[in-house]
This record gives sequence, C-alpha cells and structure tokens, in this order.
Amino acid sequence: MKPETSFDLETVYLDDAHDCLVILDQTLLPNEVKYLYLSTQAEICEAIAGLRVRGAPAIGIAAGYALYLAVKNSTAQIEAVFTAEFNRARHDLAASRPTAINLFWALDKMEACLKALRGSPLPDIIQALKATADQIKDEDLRTNAAIGENALSLLKPGMGLLTHCNAGSLATGKYGTATAAMYLGHQRGYAFQVYVDETRPLLQGARLTAFELAYAGLDVTLICDDMAASVMQAGRVQAVLVGCDRVAANGDTANKIGTCGVAVLARHFGIPFYVCAPTSSIDLHTACGADIPIEQRSPTEVTDLWFTVPMAPKKGVRVFNPAFDVTDAALITAIITEYGILRPPFAPALREVFQRKHAASV
Amino acid sequence: MKPETSFDLETVYLDDAHDCLVILDQTLLPNEVKYLYLSTQAEICEAIAGLRVRGAPAIGIAAGYALYLAVKNSTAQIEAVFTAEFNRARHDLAASRPTAINLFWALDKMEACLKALRGSPLPDIIQALKATADQIKDEDLRTNAAIGENALSLLKPGMGLLTHCNAGSLATGKYGTATAAMYLGHQRGYAFQVYVDETRPLLQGARLTAFELAYAGLDVTLICDDMAASVMQAGRVQAVLVGCDRVAANGDTANKIGTCGVAVLARHFGIPFYVCAPTSSIDLHTACGADIPIEQRSPTEVTDLWFTVPMAPKKGVRVFNPAFDVTDAALITAIITEYGILRPPFAPALREVFQRKHAASV
Repeated sequence: MKPETSFDLETVYLDDAHDCLVILDQTLLPNEVKYLYLSTQAEICEAIAGLRVRGAPAIGIAAGYALYLAVKNSTAQIEAVFTAEFNRARHDLAASRPTAINLFWALDKMEACLKALRGSPLPDIIQALKATADQIKDEDLRTNAAIGENALSLLKPGMGLLTHCNAGSLATGKYGTATAAMYLGHQRGYAFQVYVDETRPLLQGARLTAFELAYAGLDVTLICDDMAASVMQAGRVQAVLVGCDRVAANGDTANKIGTCGVAVLARHFGIPFYVCAPTSSIDLHTACGADIPIEQRSPTEVTDLWFTVPMAPKKGVRVFNPAFDVTDAALITAIITEYGILRPPFAPALREVFQRKHAASV
Repeated sequence: MKPETSFDLETVYLDDAHDCLVILDQTLLPNEVKYLYLSTQAEICEAIAGLRVRGAPAIGIAAGYALYLAVKNSTAQIEAVFTAEFNRARHDLAASRPTAINLFWALDKMEACLKALRGSPLPDIIQALKATADQIKDEDLRTNAAIGENALSLLKPGMGLLTHCNAGSLATGKYGTATAAMYLGHQRGYAFQVYVDETRPLLQGARLTAFELAYAGLDVTLICDDMAASVMQAGRVQAVLVGCDRVAANGDTANKIGTCGVAVLARHFGIPFYVCAPTSSIDLHTACGADIPIEQRSPTEVTDLWFTVPMAPKKGVRVFNPAFDVTDAALITAIITEYGILRPPFAPALREVFQRKHAASV
C-alpha cells in the first residue's frame, strides 16, 4: 500500500484516522518497499532505535507525531495525569536514539507547546500538539522545497549531476536537501542525469539515494566512489550537490566521509560544488572545520559489514573509518539555504543569512 | 607449508624436485593462505582460468613453468612427437586466459627457445626450456627490485605512503611494482605507514594488498576509497605509489579505476604521485590516454558481487563500471621504471628510456 500523497515515496507521516504513525522501513531498502503502521509507543521507539526511520529531519518528524499519538486518546481527567503520560512518552522517545539532535529539538518543541497551553482544556492541548507536530513536518518540507528552488536556479535542463551519500527524501519529510532540486527539476522535465556515489562503507548512496531517485523515475547511474573522477573527466557531470552535517562559521562543511574528496575532484575538473544546507545545520558557534569533532566508527563496517565472508585481513591491518570529513570552504562554490544562495566569502554571508532568518521569524 | 625463500609469501614458483608448479591460491585470500601443488596441465590451466593465480607478470611466470613441466618427462623419442606435446600444452595454456597479454608473451618466449634449439638432443631442449622459464621469473624479480630501489631513493623513513589496487607481490613473481619500495624499505627499517585503498568494486586493495603487506609485517591501514582525501588532508600521506596497466607515449597512464581520482587528490594536497611502470607496460605506439580503450564490466560487480543481499536497486538504476581510468600525465610527479626515474616532460623521457633499454639488451 502506497501513501496517499502527490509524492510517491513518503518517509514518515501521520495517519490520524487510524491513530498511527506510518513509516517506510528503511532497513529493508532497496530490496523491499514496506510501510509500517505503528500505533504503540513501543513500536515507534523500536523503529527509531532500529534505524527503520533515519535522517535527522525524519527522526524529528517521527518524534513529534509520536508524542501527539501518545496522548491523543488519553483518558486523563486532570492535567497532571495527562502531563505524566506525556513525560513518560517523551522519556521513552528520548532514549530511543540518544545522539540524534533533531529528536531532542522536536521533543523540546512539543514540550514547549504543552507548557504554553498549561491550564487549557485537554482537547485543546491535544489539538495544539498535533498542530505543532504538523508544523515540524511542514517546516521541513518548506525548507527543503526552498533549497530545491534555489538550487534549481543554478542548474540547466539536461545537466549531469553528482551526489554523495543520502541527503535525500528518505532522510527528511520530503524532497531531501541535496536531492530537492533533482525532484523539482524532474517534475518540470529537466531530464537530469544523476550520478550517485555508492558511499562506502555504509552504502547510503547505493541503498537509499539510487533507490529513491529511481523510484521517482529519475535517470540514475550508480557508481563506486572511486569512479567519480572518471565520470567527471568524461564530461558527464556539470554540478555536484551534497548535503551537510554541520557548516562552520567560515563555511567549512562537515558531511559524510568522501565529500571532501568529491569537492577536490570537482574543483580540478572545473565543476561547481554546491552544499545544500538548511540554516538549522549552520553553526556560527563553530569557527572552522578543525573545530568539528569527527566520529571514528567500527573497523568491521569496512572489513565485513556487507560481505558474506571477510573481504579484508583481520590480523595486522588497522582500519581508518571516520564517519565524516571536512570540506574546506575554499572548495565550495555556493552554500544553498532556504533563505537563498550564499557565495564566498562565506563568513559574512552566513552571518547575514541568520539576520534574515531572525527578521523573518519576528 | 611455506615456500622456502627469504621472502615469506611467494606467488608462484617451480618445485622441480616434485615436478609441480606451486601457486598461492589467491581466490582464498585474505581468509586462507593455501599453496596448491599443481602437477598436471589440467590443474594448471584451471588455476589460471579460475584466477587462482592472477596479475600479468605472475601469469607469465606460471605459463613458462607450465610449458616446461608439460614436456619435462616426455617419453618422446623423436623431436616431432616432442614438439606436438609442447604445442598441445601451449594451446591449452593459451586458452586458459585468452585476454592476458603476458601469458602469450611467455608462451612465445618458450616457443622461441624450442625453435632456436631445433635438432638438439631432447634433454638439452628441456634444460633450455627450464632456463627460459627461470629467466622469465628472474627478469620479473630484477625489474621489480630495480623499480623498488629507484622508488626508495625518493622516499624517507617514517613516511606515510598510499597505494590503490594491487600492484603487489601477489601480482608478480616477487616484490610487486608499487609495493617494491615498501618491501625494500621495510627490510631496511624505514617504518613506513602504508594506507591501502580498498579499491571497489573488486576490493583488490582490501583482499590482496592489505593482506600481503600485513603478512610481511608492514604497518598497514585499510581505508575505503572515499577516505583517501581525509588521510591526505590530515597530513598522513607523503607519497602515493601506484602501478599501471599501460603508459602512453605522452605519459598518460591507464590503471585500475580510481587511480585518476587519487592523482587529483595528491596534486591538491601537494603530495607526490608516482607511477611504478616496468618498461614492458610502456606503449610508445599509443599516443595518449584517449587512445587507450577502457573495458566496461558487469553492473553486478557494483550492486551485489560481495554482498549477502543486493545493496543497490536493480530496477531503474544504471551502473557505470569502468575497469580502468586514465591519469593525465600532468598529474604524475614521476614514472619509475627499472631503468630509472622519469620526470616531465614524459614524451622525450619515455623515448630515451627505450633507447637505454635497447642499448642494455645488445
């Protein structure tokens, strides 16, 4: 059963009529498209913990709806009981993926709503919680659509585009960030040819990005990471679009391991390199890339996570497995936010975009 | 049982006392070190066809010894019968891996030996065939050792080195080409830190290079291909050493897919990029890289060769899977041959090295 939206593949949405959160089980991709209809808190927490729903924005959206569903049918007669039910659900959700920043951001936003309506009739509070959860999702959609429109203004029909990892629809409520312009362009007949790096070690490009773009009918070519130079050299790529985990105040950008290498290649072959960044991932308190901590992950991800038999020796060989790398601001052609396209020098441009964001929110 | 050489791991050698060719079964690496003792032509042909022995020089060496063994114990009384036996074995070996240039080169060399001794006593011919097969192996060892010495003269103790794919001992009679300086340096206490790209899609770096270097006791760190930029950025790499499939007359170099990207990264991060090239892989009849045909291989190598379940969608996704790429001569710091180190401009340097080679052989 497919979700009833104009967009074929929706990562996470509320089925209010049936009191459930619907998520696309990403652990089964790309081999099976299966939606899970989650009606209990335990099911939702398991889905978040088990990476069935992943990607910072998508987790935030799931958490918002999960809190709403937790109290929607509450039989509490007094607010203290209702609040206790809310807090119990909040606690369980917070424990489901303790390192996911967006999870806490969404839970805080829901809690703020609850606190703001203290003393109101419970049905009103419940409706406000639903509205807040909807708002978390709507804001994500609007942000991604705006990034997509801004990025699309830099692209031309028929272009070859390259992306790395999954900053796609599957990581968000809809559109993705790096993929937003691809989807919008596809709807408008731009006929992009999209090259997707498989993105070792965890293969998010092969498993998720290639899947979601092909599912939506785009022209997708999967490549191994070490083939990116070859497709660029052959003149097949006119722009690179990637997402980001964090943009520092000077424009240095942390993103999935491999991104920095793609940026170097793009510079060498004269191809523009665009970072698609919702302002929520811009961190003016981090001065530069060197200040961004890089997580080192398990060697087994490299040596045998996806393999039937170990494909690398276990003895006497170290593995270097950083989750992210930092792309020097000097390699970035533009940072594309929901508030517009930022060009170098990035430090003043990033400060200015926050002023604009602040002005828009007051 | 280990081969009795000063070098722990030998890819292919003759056990003359027991009438057999001994090869390290590379299809079992890195999980098992198993030597095969092949005494029949059928066994040897199967080992070549089944990639149990691989790498152009190693295949050439195996073929030379295989032809010698095929006639060593011949009971033929007249030369015509002996020659027919030789030709039957030659025919079977040629069919075992029809695209392997070194296989034919070695078979031709053995045949030339047979023809040169026409009319000689059969025991003399047999001894000459063994000597020719030994010469094929010795020449490979001398070539690799010379490349290693030349490369080592460019390196300093304690350096971080990076290599891609397997231009290692396992592909040759001994030492390898890109790895020769690593082994020689290791013997002399250079304490290199070697970074090995896993080299998708076929993982020759993870399965073979990381294995053989670790087996010999070197300090080896395995990385995914998309981590090369990260280790270079971190200042961990002071030189890149790669092998080559073909060097064109202008210095453009075809090698395993991913090599060109590594060369671009090395240039960006100011790291010298060295191509280790026996003169046998320099082709002055090919003007430049654009004239080198690039083989496209099966999509399944990318989507599911090593995976328990398909890790990429099969429907609606194309796969680009070139076996090789071409590194522009402008990105190459030096081409290291057995006759010396060539610096840009490469066209005159390559012509000159062939003059020197010709002079050395007359």
